[in-house]
Amino acid sequence: MFIDLSVLLNEQTPVYPGDPKTAIKPAGVLAKDGWCDHYVSVGTHVGTHIDAPMHMIESGKSLDKFELDRFAGSAQCIDVSDGFDAVKTAGIQEGGIVLFCTKMSDKYFDKAYYENYPVMSEEVANYLVTKKLKMVGLDACSVDNKDDFPIHKILLGNDILIIENLTNMIQLIGKEFKLYALPIKLGLDGAPARVVAEL
Amino acid sequence: MFIDLSVLLNEQTPVYPGDPKTAIKPAGVLAKDGWCDHYVSVGTHVGTHIDAPMHMIESGKSLDKFELDRFAGSAQCIDVSDGFDAVKTAGIQEGGIVLFCTKMSDKYFDKAYYENYPVMSEEVANYLVTKKLKMVGLDACSVDNKDDFPIHKILLGNDILIIENLTNMIQLIGKEFKLYALPIKLGLDGAPARVVAEL
Repeated sequence: MFIDLSVLLNEQTPVYPGDPKTAIKPAGVLAKDGWCDHYVSVGTHVGTHIDAPMHMIESGKSLDKFELDRFAGSAQCIDVSDGFDAVKTAGIQEGGIVLFCTKMSDKYFDKAYYENYPVMSEEVANYLVTKKLKMVGLDACSVDNKDDFPIHKILLGNDILIIENLTNMIQLIGKEFKLYALPIKLGLDGAPARVVAEL
Repeated sequence: MFIDLSVLLNEQTPVYPGDPKTAIKPAGVLAKDGWCDHYVSVGTHVGTHIDAPMHMIESGKSLDKFELDRFAGSAQCIDVSDGFDAVKTAGIQEGGIVLFCTKMSDKYFDKAYYENYPVMSEEVANYLVTKKLKMVGLDACSVDNKDDFPIHKILLGNDILIIENLTNMIQLIGKEFKLYALPIKLGLDGAPARVVAEL
């Protein structure tokens, strides 16, 4: 069974403050051209997406430089809606993928989504680095709420990929599952991804 | 083990004649803004992508209307570089995914890629419909080379999704594998997808 952890991408999909807005324009029109297609303009960090080191780290790797097995693997989901204290006692497996359920996805279209969300401490981020994780992901707009982005820098500086703006995670808490988080193949700082859990 | 069947997406990625060209512009600049991101404009049928019925069928479904298990499953790869006669004797499994290796991906950057490629007959397309496939895919620019797109209409008219512009398929011929073909979640006629084989 699959669970879709990805948000729908359209012109109403919120973007991080300052990021370019999504635009969708018709290209071919079925009745006139014989086919229907569109021209889609998106920021590399729109909706459910993956951050590569290049996003925050000088000379950091672009997303196409990661082996495919970095985008899939055994995953666990930790409830951090009451804070990230639960992380250290969650029995995180080395080399896996960890999702953090903040429950912020309930507020995805509210102003609060970008203004008031829980973040991990630098200590927790450094602990995750010791676990040599492939990726971390969360149902919030960012792993940071400080202007100098310390958590991004710890994780991306250690080549741990970050998935942001996930959804539908509550049903995964306490379950074991396989995660497939496949970004479109851009040689850039990040990319929209389709992220699914396979139970 | 994973094999990446997706082409790299950048401004040099060829587009189908008449389709809008890919544009990639910087948005945030690391040294100035504290992060690096980009604004990416692509056609819904650029590079490795999936066609939804809406692409060619009046009132056809958009890509977001398909259940996730339509984008993953048992797959086989048939060598059709000498024609599609091999299809009917290939032992196609009902409800699966079939990839057709045309070997056109060797010419991905040549003019010939869009001008001279093998296509299946309407008879073969109708045979595939009887197999109730989830998806078909191929390493060529289109399943059609006629202006009225008969093969698209047979497949999409029966809700069989089509993956175009695959690559790296030669090594899959004769193997059993699981395919994950995950498009970004657009409510449109198609979308770029990351397509991977898991052996």
